Amino acid sequence: MKTDKHFLSIAEAMKQGSGDVWIRGWVWRERGSNKLKFITLRDASNVIQCVIEKAVVGDSQFGIADKIQMEASVEIYGTMKQDPRAPTGYELAVKEFHLVGSSDSFPINKDQSVEFLADNRHLWLRSRKMTAVLKIRSTVFGAIDEYFRMKGFFEYHSPIFQAIQCEGGSTLFEVDYFKQKGVFLSQSWQLYAEPAIFALEKIYTISPSFRAEKSKTSRHLTEYWHAEMEEAWASFDQIIDHGEGVLKHIVKKVLETNQEELKILERDVKKLEPTLQKPFPHMTYDDALVILKKHGMDVEWGKDLRTIEEDVLSKLYDTPIAVTRYPKVVKAFYMKEDPKNPNVVLGVDFIGPEGYGEIIGGSEREADIEKIKQRLIAQGEDPKAYEFYLDTRRYGSVPHGGFGMGVERVIAWVCGLDNIKDAIPFPRTMVRWKP
Amino acid sequence: MKTDKHFLSIAEAMKQGSGDVWIRGWVWRERGSNKLKFITLRDASNVIQCVIEKAVVGDSQFGIADKIQMEASVEIYGTMKQDPRAPTGYELAVKEFHLVGSSDSFPINKDQSVEFLADNRHLWLRSRKMTAVLKIRSTVFGAIDEYFRMKGFFEYHSPIFQAIQCEGGSTLFEVDYFKQKGVFLSQSWQLYAEPAIFALEKIYTISPSFRAEKSKTSRHLTEYWHAEMEEAWASFDQIIDHGEGVLKHIVKKVLETNQEELKILERDVKKLEPTLQKPFPHMTYDDALVILKKHGMDVEWGKDLRTIEEDVLSKLYDTPIAVTRYPKVVKAFYMKEDPKNPNVVLGVDFIGPEGYGEIIGGSEREADIEKIKQRLIAQGEDPKAYEFYLDTRRYGSVPHGGFGMGVERVIAWVCGLDNIKDAIPFPRTMVRWKP
Repeated sequence: MKTDKHFLSIAEAMKQGSGDVWIRGWVWRERGSNKLKFITLRDASNVIQCVIEKAVVGDSQFGIADKIQMEASVEIYGTMKQDPRAPTGYELAVKEFHLVGSSDSFPINKDQSVEFLADNRHLWLRSRKMTAVLKIRSTVFGAIDEYFRMKGFFEYHSPIFQAIQCEGGSTLFEVDYFKQKGVFLSQSWQLYAEPAIFALEKIYTISPSFRAEKSKTSRHLTEYWHAEMEEAWASFDQIIDHGEGVLKHIVKKVLETNQEELKILERDVKKLEPTLQKPFPHMTYDDALVILKKHGMDVEWGKDLRTIEEDVLSKLYDTPIAVTRYPKVVKAFYMKEDPKNPNVVLGVDFIGPEGYGEIIGGSEREADIEKIKQRLIAQGEDPKAYEFYLDTRRYGSVPHGGFGMGVERVIAWVCGLDNIKDAIPFPRTMVRWKP
Repeated sequence: MKTDKHFLSIAEAMKQGSGDVWIRGWVWRERGSNKLKFITLRDASNVIQCVIEKAVVGDSQFGIADKIQMEASVEIYGTMKQDPRAPTGYELAVKEFHLVGSSDSFPINKDQSVEFLADNRHLWLRSRKMTAVLKIRSTVFGAIDEYFRMKGFFEYHSPIFQAIQCEGGSTLFEVDYFKQKGVFLSQSWQLYAEPAIFALEKIYTISPSFRAEKSKTSRHLTEYWHAEMEEAWASFDQIIDHGEGVLKHIVKKVLETNQEELKILERDVKKLEPTLQKPFPHMTYDDALVILKKHGMDVEWGKDLRTIEEDVLSKLYDTPIAVTRYPKVVKAFYMKEDPKNPNVVLGVDFIGPEGYGEIIGGSEREADIEKIKQRLIAQGEDPKAYEFYLDTRRYGSVPHGGFGMGVERVIAWVCGLDNIKDAIPFPRTMVRWKP
């Protein structure tokens, strides 16, 4: 290959709008006759229609172009011109055409089953839909980093290998750790984050978390990315504010950066805008039960809200909702008992709009070491295994709190996806660990 | 607690330099008499000496202050003044003193064994040393993100659960995946990154990677953070340039952000500056062997460079060195054969200065599917298991390459640490998986 070609991305070439340019990418669609060939070329930035005339490029290059198949990679030199009939408003009149990598019978060429696409995920990533989702995913990760760094947080990491559990033993993955038993994959950074606020005060992470979920719903992955924050001296209200703050920042950045991708996904951006414009409604668990009753759903006090109940609440509002003060029995042992009511905790779930379910779960943390021990025992745990965690309450304990966000759930909501599996490049579920 | 107190960080209070302020934090050191108590308070930002006089705060508050122990948490109100005798140049004359969380016999109060500190890692994180390292770690992660986003890369993630291996079967961790055998933890994103460059072209990640390393050296962790990049259409030289670029950007950001922390770590910043100022030396593996011979080390052609050999090379320069064109037999199957010499690959290792070993390994990738298959077979692998990966060479293959960086190795070098274990909050090794 010549190294003196200066390549533009398709988006850059369209921005330039005229003159001769080199572009390169993959054949998205092709059709033609024995004198004229139309190739729609795609690269990471966009797609463009390229017109190849035998009379212009000559027999040899036209012969190659004529036989080209979907997903072959090519380098093209030609003249840019506006053309309202072309799919993206521009057309390239080709002067030179080079095949880089051929492609023979690309397996995904029409509508295929979900299972086939999952088996060929490595190829399906090239689709316009998945490319759009992956770009938005990158924006979401960047927005989370940006929000917490803007607010003075340090990025910090818990170990993935943990010899302890914090979110229920039934969803633990065990690792063969040099034949050692009892080493599991992280469900959350919680127990390893709290010790670090005594050093850094304000910390966040974006890290994989693992849950051996036996449910095959459209909302569960066994491996997902978990954005978590923890803050020393923070009140319950400050934790809730950060939840609202980071969700607003994510939506803001996606709307600023990814209008093209949202269009490809046919996402109605009007459904995202209220999240930016309005304060989120807050309600207690008790309030939620009253609202649900009005909608014909009787939830017994003390039961966690199920998906169907969250969905009813979520459809009453056009932004995420913060539901607070859940019954203590349904929440994790480290959540702080409400000083005004020992039956509930100062915990909050953010429920996404449009039925996207819980996207953030957080709380102020319990400061009373005896209460923590009692709740561990009530959950069938031996407090002795948690000694290192309990030390956080023994040596200069301070009020603090934090939350965890399921990043793929947020991406699924922002993109308007039917299934969380499309929010991550290679989804893992109980029945899917390949390719 | 009153909510109308407006707290400043210690750094903010010192910047203000005078007047009355509220600060809060943990007791780092304390000494005193029955009328006067000196407390050095630390928070995430700095430390400051606080002087508590019984005559000022009264008997009750002085009584509490007098009995206070290391690592108790407190809120303090007082008058800031410059004092050249105080450890950080400022002193707070205390007017009001509140204990928040007591601390009884903090276990780490003098020099303790490495093993004791490892067992109490959750408390040792509070040390000035570990706090400084963790802040630099946060800067390093931010700098990696910033570099790749600046260069137009998308953040992308490979699965952690992989039913395939790419860096040698002996260091794989197997997971009990719903009783399914043959599911391992990621050693690298490599096989899952290459399929995505056909969608996004330029991608990077920062993710945990896992190696069941049986070596107990000061350079190995079983769980480490791996920054990886992959780029479509990139030449070998462009990959090397990105390696140099990201290392320079990391050092630049740390020098800009963390002068205080480098001082605490007694890091000689003069040893970091050349990395910013000079182009990195490049040499081939063959060149390296000649140099090593001059230094009395005979390496047989075809053997990988060992730690002791890398250390000799590293000490000849004051920046990282790029060593290129290693023998094919010692490098991964996906590295491109040098078109000019089929015995070597277009691979590069960046060796850190001061004996910090290999910090980046990368290459242009092999495009020839038959060569890849032959090398898989030569390594005892069945190419059938790699079908999905081989598809990247079947459908519109393009020249491409990338690298992986061991983030903790870079942190260890930048901080000047003796052991990589101090570059991560909770290090995991063959013999350490707790707390």
